[in-house]
Amino acid sequence: MRTLAPVKVITTTLTVATNARTEIRDLTDAVAALPGVDEIACGSVLLQSLHTTTALIINEHQDALLHDIAALLRTLVPEGGTYRHNDPAYSDCNRANATSHLGAVLLGQTLQVPIEQGRLVLGTWQRLLFCELDGPQTRRIYAQVMGV
Amino acid sequence: MRTLAPVKVITTTLTVATNARTEIRDLTDAVAALPGVDEIACGSVLLQSLHTTTALIINEHQDALLHDIAALLRTLVPEGGTYRHNDPAYSDCNRANATSHLGAVLLGQTLQVPIEQGRLVLGTWQRLLFCELDGPQTRRIYAQVMGV
Amino acid sequence: MRTLAPVKVITTTLTVATNARTEIRDLTDAVAALPGVDEIACGSVLLQSLHTTTALIINEHQDALLHDIAALLRTLVPEGGTYRHNDPAYSDCNRANATSHLGAVLLGQTLQVPIEQGRLVLGTWQRLLFCELDGPQTRRIYAQVMGV
Repeated sequence: MRTLAPVKVITTTLTVATNARTEIRDLTDAVAALPGVDEIACGSVLLQSLHTTTALIINEHQDALLHDIAALLRTLVPEGGTYRHNDPAYSDCNRANATSHLGAVLLGQTLQVPIEQGRLVLGTWQRLLFCELDGPQTRRIYAQVMGV
Repeated sequence: MRTLAPVKVITTTLTVATNARTEIRDLTDAVAALPGVDEIACGSVLLQSLHTTTALIINEHQDALLHDIAALLRTLVPEGGTYRHNDPAYSDCNRANATSHLGAVLLGQTLQVPIEQGRLVLGTWQRLLFCELDGPQTRRIYAQVMGV
Repeated sequence: MRTLAPVKVITTTLTVATNARTEIRDLTDAVAALPGVDEIACGSVLLQSLHTTTALIINEHQDALLHDIAALLRTLVPEGGTYRHNDPAYSDCNRANATSHLGAVLLGQTLQVPIEQGRLVLGTWQRLLFCELDGPQTRRIYAQVMGV
C-alpha cells in the first residue's frame, strides 16, 4: 500500500482490573476494538502501560506458555533475592515489589502494533499480552491510534 | 529538521529463510532498501516479525558477539529446563519450543527505526538483527514506512 | 482526542556525558523540553540511543531501584563469564565490553513515548531512563517528535 494523506489520530485509555500478583491477560480483542482502529487504512497503535510494575509483550496466548513466562521471571528475578528497593534502609517503598519493577524492565512497557485496513497486523500465533507483575490492581494502558 | 506535511505510508513484507535452529541475520541493508525508505525526508520504519519464536534487536553485527547473544539466551532459558509448553500434559504444541518463545519474549519482536533524508538513522555500530530462535523456517517481517 | 491534520516532524539529538561504567540517568525532563514537544497536540517522540552498549527504558527513578537494575544486569550477564567478544582469538574489539552489549540487547535501545497537549504521557512513577553500560563516554540519543 502507498498513500499520501493527512494523518488521523485517535487516543483512548484501556482499564484492566487484575486478580492476582502475577497475571498475563490477552488484550488483543480489546485493542482491535479501540475507537479509531477500524478507520485506519494504514498506521499503527502505540500502547503504553502507565505503570512501572507491568509489561506489554507479543507472544502466544496459551496457558502453559503463560505459566512458563511467569516462571522465567521468577527464575531471572527471584523473590528471595536481596533488593535495595525492598530495604527500608535504602527505600521508602513499602510494597517490597522490586521483582515487579525488574521484571517490567526486562519485558518493556510499550508496544507499537501496525494496522492495515482497520485490523491489527499480527502473525498467526501473535497476541498482545498485558503482564501484571504486582497485582491485583486496576491498571491503565494508554492507546494512540495513528495513521491514514 | 522541521516539517508540516501530509504523511506518506508504504508497507511491504520481508521474507527471510533461515538455515539453523538459532541464527542471527543482519537485515539492515534489506530494510534500508525497502520500497519508500528513499522517499522519506523524516519518518521511520516500523518492523514487526510476524512469529512468536523470533526477535528483532539492534546491536553490532560481529560473529563473536552473535555467538555470545545466542549463548546468553541458552543460559537464561536453558534447553534442559522444565517447561509446560513442552509437556503434552499441559500443551498441544508438538515442537517442544518453549525456549524459543521465552527468548523471543526477552528480546522483543518489534523495532521502529528512524529515517532521515532517505536513510536509516543508526549509530556507527548499530545494525538491525533478526533472531531466528526456532529454525530453520521461512519467516516474514512486516515493514511499514511512514513519514514526510 | 480525534484529529485529522498534516503531520509535524521535528528532530534533534540529545547529548549525554556519562561519568561511570554503569550509570542510569533520568532523561525525562530533557525529553519533555525537546524542540517541538510543546507544539504537539497528539503524537509521540521516538528516541533511539545511537550506541550498542547503552539502553533506554521506562521505570521509576529511585536510587535503590537503579542499584537493583544494575545488579540484575551483573547477575544475568556476569562480568566473570566467558565471552567471545572479549577474546582476541575471535574478536578485534579491544574494550572487552561483551557484558555491555549483552545488557543492551536485553534492555533495548529505542523508546516511543506518547505526547498529548504538549506533554509526555507517562504514569505517576514512570521516567525515561538512559542506561550507560560502558562508560564514561559521551553519548547521543536521536529524538524524532511527530504528531499533529
